[in-house]
Amino acid sequence: MRRIAFLLVVILCSPLLTVGQQEEQAKLAGFFGNSSADEQAWEQKFQAIPSPDNMIADMKLLAARPHHVGSPYDEKNSEWLLAQYKKWGWDAHIETFQVLFPTPKLRVLEMVAPTRFVAQLREPPVPGDPTSSQQSEQLPTYNAYSPDGDVTAPLVYANYGVPEDYDQLARMGISVKGAIVITRYGHSWRGIKPKLAYEHGAIGCLIYSDPRDDGYYEGDVFPKGPWRPSQGVQRGSVVKMELYPGDPLTPGVGADAHAKRLPIKEAKTIEDIPVMPISYGDALPLLKALGGPVAPSDWRGALPITYHVGPGPAKVHLKLQFNWDLKPVRDVIAKLPGSTYADEWVIRGNHYDGWVNGAEDPIAGQVALLEEARSLGQLYQQGWRPKRTIIYCSWDGEEPGLLGSTEWVEEHGDELATHAVAYINSDTNGRGYLQAEGSHSLESLVNNVADEIQDPEKGISVGKRRQLAALARTESPEERQKLESQKNFILGDLGSGSDYSAFIDHAGIASIDYGFGGEAGGGIYHSIYDDFYWYSHFDDPTEAYGRTLSQTAGTTIMRLADSDVPPLDFTGLSDAVGRFVSELEKLDKSEINEIQWQNKEIQDGIFAASTDPTKKFVPPATEEVPSPLDFSPLDDAVKNLKQAAGHYQSAFDKVQEGTPASGASFQTVDQDLISTERALLYQEGLPGRPWYRHELVAPGIYTGYGVKTIPAVREAIEQKNWSQAADQITIVAGVLQKEADSINAAASALESAGQ
Amino acid sequence: MRRIAFLLVVILCSPLLTVGQQEEQAKLAGFFGNSSADEQAWEQKFQAIPSPDNMIADMKLLAARPHHVGSPYDEKNSEWLLAQYKKWGWDAHIETFQVLFPTPKLRVLEMVAPTRFVAQLREPPVPGDPTSSQQSEQLPTYNAYSPDGDVTAPLVYANYGVPEDYDQLARMGISVKGAIVITRYGHSWRGIKPKLAYEHGAIGCLIYSDPRDDGYYEGDVFPKGPWRPSQGVQRGSVVKMELYPGDPLTPGVGADAHAKRLPIKEAKTIEDIPVMPISYGDALPLLKALGGPVAPSDWRGALPITYHVGPGPAKVHLKLQFNWDLKPVRDVIAKLPGSTYADEWVIRGNHYDGWVNGAEDPIAGQVALLEEARSLGQLYQQGWRPKRTIIYCSWDGEEPGLLGSTEWVEEHGDELATHAVAYINSDTNGRGYLQAEGSHSLESLVNNVADEIQDPEKGISVGKRRQLAALARTESPEERQKLESQKNFILGDLGSGSDYSAFIDHAGIASIDYGFGGEAGGGIYHSIYDDFYWYSHFDDPTEAYGRTLSQTAGTTIMRLADSDVPPLDFTGLSDAVGRFVSELEKLDKSEINEIQWQNKEIQDGIFAASTDPTKKFVPPATEEVPSPLDFSPLDDAVKNLKQAAGHYQSAFDKVQEGTPASGASFQTVDQDLISTERALLYQEGLPGRPWYRHELVAPGIYTGYGVKTIPAVREAIEQKNWSQAADQITIVAGVLQKEADSINAAASALESAGQ
Repeated sequence: MRRIAFLLVVILCSPLLTVGQQEEQAKLAGFFGNSSADEQAWEQKFQAIPSPDNMIADMKLLAARPHHVGSPYDEKNSEWLLAQYKKWGWDAHIETFQVLFPTPKLRVLEMVAPTRFVAQLREPPVPGDPTSSQQSEQLPTYNAYSPDGDVTAPLVYANYGVPEDYDQLARMGISVKGAIVITRYGHSWRGIKPKLAYEHGAIGCLIYSDPRDDGYYEGDVFPKGPWRPSQGVQRGSVVKMELYPGDPLTPGVGADAHAKRLPIKEAKTIEDIPVMPISYGDALPLLKALGGPVAPSDWRGALPITYHVGPGPAKVHLKLQFNWDLKPVRDVIAKLPGSTYADEWVIRGNHYDGWVNGAEDPIAGQVALLEEARSLGQLYQQGWRPKRTIIYCSWDGEEPGLLGSTEWVEEHGDELATHAVAYINSDTNGRGYLQAEGSHSLESLVNNVADEIQDPEKGISVGKRRQLAALARTESPEERQKLESQKNFILGDLGSGSDYSAFIDHAGIASIDYGFGGEAGGGIYHSIYDDFYWYSHFDDPTEAYGRTLSQTAGTTIMRLADSDVPPLDFTGLSDAVGRFVSELEKLDKSEINEIQWQNKEIQDGIFAASTDPTKKFVPPATEEVPSPLDFSPLDDAVKNLKQAAGHYQSAFDKVQEGTPASGASFQTVDQDLISTERALLYQEGLPGRPWYRHELVAPGIYTGYGVKTIPAVREAIEQKNWSQAADQITIVAGVLQKEADSINAAASALESAGQ
Repeated sequence: MRRIAFLLVVILCSPLLTVGQQEEQAKLAGFFGNSSADEQAWEQKFQAIPSPDNMIADMKLLAARPHHVGSPYDEKNSEWLLAQYKKWGWDAHIETFQVLFPTPKLRVLEMVAPTRFVAQLREPPVPGDPTSSQQSEQLPTYNAYSPDGDVTAPLVYANYGVPEDYDQLARMGISVKGAIVITRYGHSWRGIKPKLAYEHGAIGCLIYSDPRDDGYYEGDVFPKGPWRPSQGVQRGSVVKMELYPGDPLTPGVGADAHAKRLPIKEAKTIEDIPVMPISYGDALPLLKALGGPVAPSDWRGALPITYHVGPGPAKVHLKLQFNWDLKPVRDVIAKLPGSTYADEWVIRGNHYDGWVNGAEDPIAGQVALLEEARSLGQLYQQGWRPKRTIIYCSWDGEEPGLLGSTEWVEEHGDELATHAVAYINSDTNGRGYLQAEGSHSLESLVNNVADEIQDPEKGISVGKRRQLAALARTESPEERQKLESQKNFILGDLGSGSDYSAFIDHAGIASIDYGFGGEAGGGIYHSIYDDFYWYSHFDDPTEAYGRTLSQTAGTTIMRLADSDVPPLDFTGLSDAVGRFVSELEKLDKSEINEIQWQNKEIQDGIFAASTDPTKKFVPPATEEVPSPLDFSPLDDAVKNLKQAAGHYQSAFDKVQEGTPASGASFQTVDQDLISTERALLYQEGLPGRPWYRHELVAPGIYTGYGVKTIPAVREAIEQKNWSQAADQITIVAGVLQKEADSINAAASALESAGQ
């Protein structure tokens, strides 16, 4: 009672709450003349339709049995999805690809010294959770795209297995050469861990979930609470997605019946050493048996032991064999035709395959997408006609490596280059705050939508809640002031880890990734416990946030499909590029400072004076201090980009303020707008990974999912490859100039069309 | 081999290492004419004498049996110490006080719901560690000055039990009224925990050592490593030392035979609710049985559980009874007479009583002090004659509440006010870095000494090592530059927790606290495992740092006793006061900012938007925003202080550069110098605690050991008592003006004497 009273006071008093209402009466960006009022009417109808009850029923059905790639239930789900789209009036079909998807044949992990211990490698069913006992259909715990292997070696603990951890091992004088490395999940995408272990000479790799990050430290474990129990394991792909996602055998082309396939041995994205995920229950005896130095303080987890690094005396035997079969992935593709610009495609997607029952990941997102499709179908029956073609995609095969979406984008590359306006993705979903990442040209649109959709818990808009929560997290008056002065919240940048990757990174299609979350913690990711029982007890039991995701993503789709001109905005984009460039300049300075400082630490005896002689310490070697990079080409490009953004903005405002001649066509404008994101591609791709062509964002070569902005330059600096950094500055500046030209062209076209 | 080679290179290359050598040839500060060379010769002789082998033998003897206040072995040690001083030519005696020192009669701790568990409350002997089995002589695990009590109540976990933790509990809507609070050791002096628990309505308090802070998380536990084992307990006093230390029954006067004693019920420093320390072995079942919300993330320790806050369902029964007896404390006091200024006393002290065998605390410090006394005795026999009287003190009764030193200072208050030049303290000691806290008028002296004493591990001076280690810890180029630009390292400020307290806080005697440490971690503090076995395996087995402490403290004593004018310097002092004042100004601003921000968080709905409705959250009430305080009186005082410091410095330099007439007397100068620290006292004391009279430093009323600088103002601001803060600004400014006058007087006296 108290809480509710308190909230009411806030709602009644806050002057900011009227903003959304005022905007509703104002014209929507990109809608000219009367079209704005029409759009608002249709959007309101739309937002009333998505039904939480339907979502609960759909989740129960789709997550009823394990449904990984190639499983009978995954196929059954695809047929059911197809039938739904058709029932709702969509033009739907299944598009099938044949992809390499290894599954376990043999898994052995045992400690052979100093004592013997055989790992359980099995998640026990939980009484009361009905689907956790479907053991015959569950994929065993494993990392997909580990190679076969049979290795026995001393164990070394390498923390999260990220580059800095290997630096730290070097300082301790510890090598992983010939060892099996045990790392914990977190701080990088899992595929980075065996890759780095291999690069440093290890012959095997284990990845476990430490209870500090994902277990009892965070909260009560399942089934008492939502967190990972002792034997819970995070399955997952370790395919080298940072080189290219999708089928390892068909890089760059759709894995259709005619595709040329690489021999497995030549597939560059399969790992080099055997790797397996384990539970903290299985990890405890291994870590407890380690000797050697005590682990640095930020390496220690929440197991009740003193963490040691090794090597040994724990010695481990790891044996893995897989079925290396091709399996079908079935993408369910559904269309509503555009009335005016049928050749302009607004695309929406969410995968439906799971590692096991996958209720949160991905069915929570899939059921929201389904309710959007049903609602849009209903509007269509009521006479609503989107100007542009809408394509809804239920992707298969996301879990092993974004297989379904990547193969589809590769298969339809040429069409997409011409037709795609934007791609809106979602994946997992839950109770909490709006999370939105994506192309900054869509930043303004996302903000407008977020200001209109109500948060189901708080009675304010999801945009407002996001803004207030960001304020709550600030730590200084300066941060607060900065945040409050921002007109729009800034979109996060897209790394990887969901189906937008091929759209943005390879095809240069402006993309958004939406999701709600952050309130319902949990540790069932990629385990048998990610099921309906868990979701309905611990995440979003009423599907209130499923409905909110439907409203948010569906409204975004409608706005893109219905507008006279898609409401793209390049101010956010040019601001973002300005930020990225100044971050690069700071990074270069700080790398130089760090090298200078490290040299000084060696030369002035700072290391020598501050180390304990009873503990081994190997100082780093002195390094040559590089000259500062010349960032002026990028600085110039940012200037031009800002000018172009201003040019487009004033053209757009002018058309928006006036009333364009009835029947005025904006088709050329649209084509120019569509090409602005394509202009950010560099056809030869990023250094060493040509599949990645976007010059503003890519997943990091040593972070995996984690984004790197202006990756060609940033990663060259991080890897201290100064000549490559200089070369890439020129290339990126050229691409940014192309982008400015492209925006200017759209502005001129708009000026002509609007007259 | 590798490490040694690396060090040699550093030593040979570093240009900074010649500084110490140059200084040795220069005149020592405070030594005029030829006296500098003489002093250096005597100091070099002195530094060669302290013997690590003697220290090992002395530690073996003094720590051979439990030797707490009132125990037979404590008395035996006092007699042995007396005999040593006498043997070395000192004029020594034992001065005895009768003090209240409660010891356990009955200790019961059991969980009575939801299941039954009886706490062990006992530290098991460790095979191989001979003294750990002397159980009949060991004091049981307890907190001295807990009252008797018998309480049964639900348990609440309150983290470290500091003020912010109770704020956090209030936000969660949890009251400790009528509950027993369990807190963990750390982040405040232990006596603060039951005090705050009581102030919030709790009826009992437990304090446990969490393995995160003091156990397996930090390193291997005893006897495999140095850290606290599962049943290890930190004994310790909870007397309200922040009101006054020493005997609770005789505040302000020596507890001699004639002292008037308060009835126990009127002693304000005894706690209000029963309190007991327990091991993490005993705490685990209690914490595991707690329900209620999950503890905030920074409340979670390293036990393998989800930390909950309660209250209950764990219900606990705590019953405690003590013997409330008077016990003797025997201070061993030894003098070497001064040749020129016999009425000026240079005092050195370290306690010898322990909680159990107390090898690290305090015997490691005591044996270093003993070797100083032996060495100075030897110099005396060789003809060395200190100008001033040197008094060495082996204190008894430090552990229960600084009893021996406080009663002695109170007993001799008038003499000390006239005669005391400075007090040099030490306590625990171990392998690692020089740690030095104290009066900033001694900062320059400490730096000079630290530049001359060699670090036994590194072949550089302990001052240089300290400086390089501080550089190693910096995190930004700005910090590094600042640190490198400092002429002297800055002394830490004295809080409480060792025998300097009565000297600095009550008597206004310039004080230093010395110790080495930081390399040998450990978790045996105040347990039966702090013994010779532990110390000789895990801390400073060769007593190399015992010797270094002797050299450092002994050289400081000699420099103070032998100099023509004590080498006090007021630049460091006035800089320090400038820092303190600007910190206060920042604190006032940030308090105002915080109140404004919190009001905004309530009014704008930031709390409302950023909380999870499934979790209870009680927002704070809005507060009135205070006006900024007027700091101009303090700013003016700082200016005057800086001027006075400059005045003294130029007078001092002039005398140092010239050659004063032979036989020139500096007695007036000395008297003026001695009074400069006394001038920092305010006779009415700090608000609410008149025993504390120093206006620059005091232990915090809500931190315990932790220092508060300019406490009268700082604590008023922290407690949002704005009118008191304003009043105290005036008082402190007055005291600082008195200090400036006192320094100017010394400068003028020096100018006259030096002519």
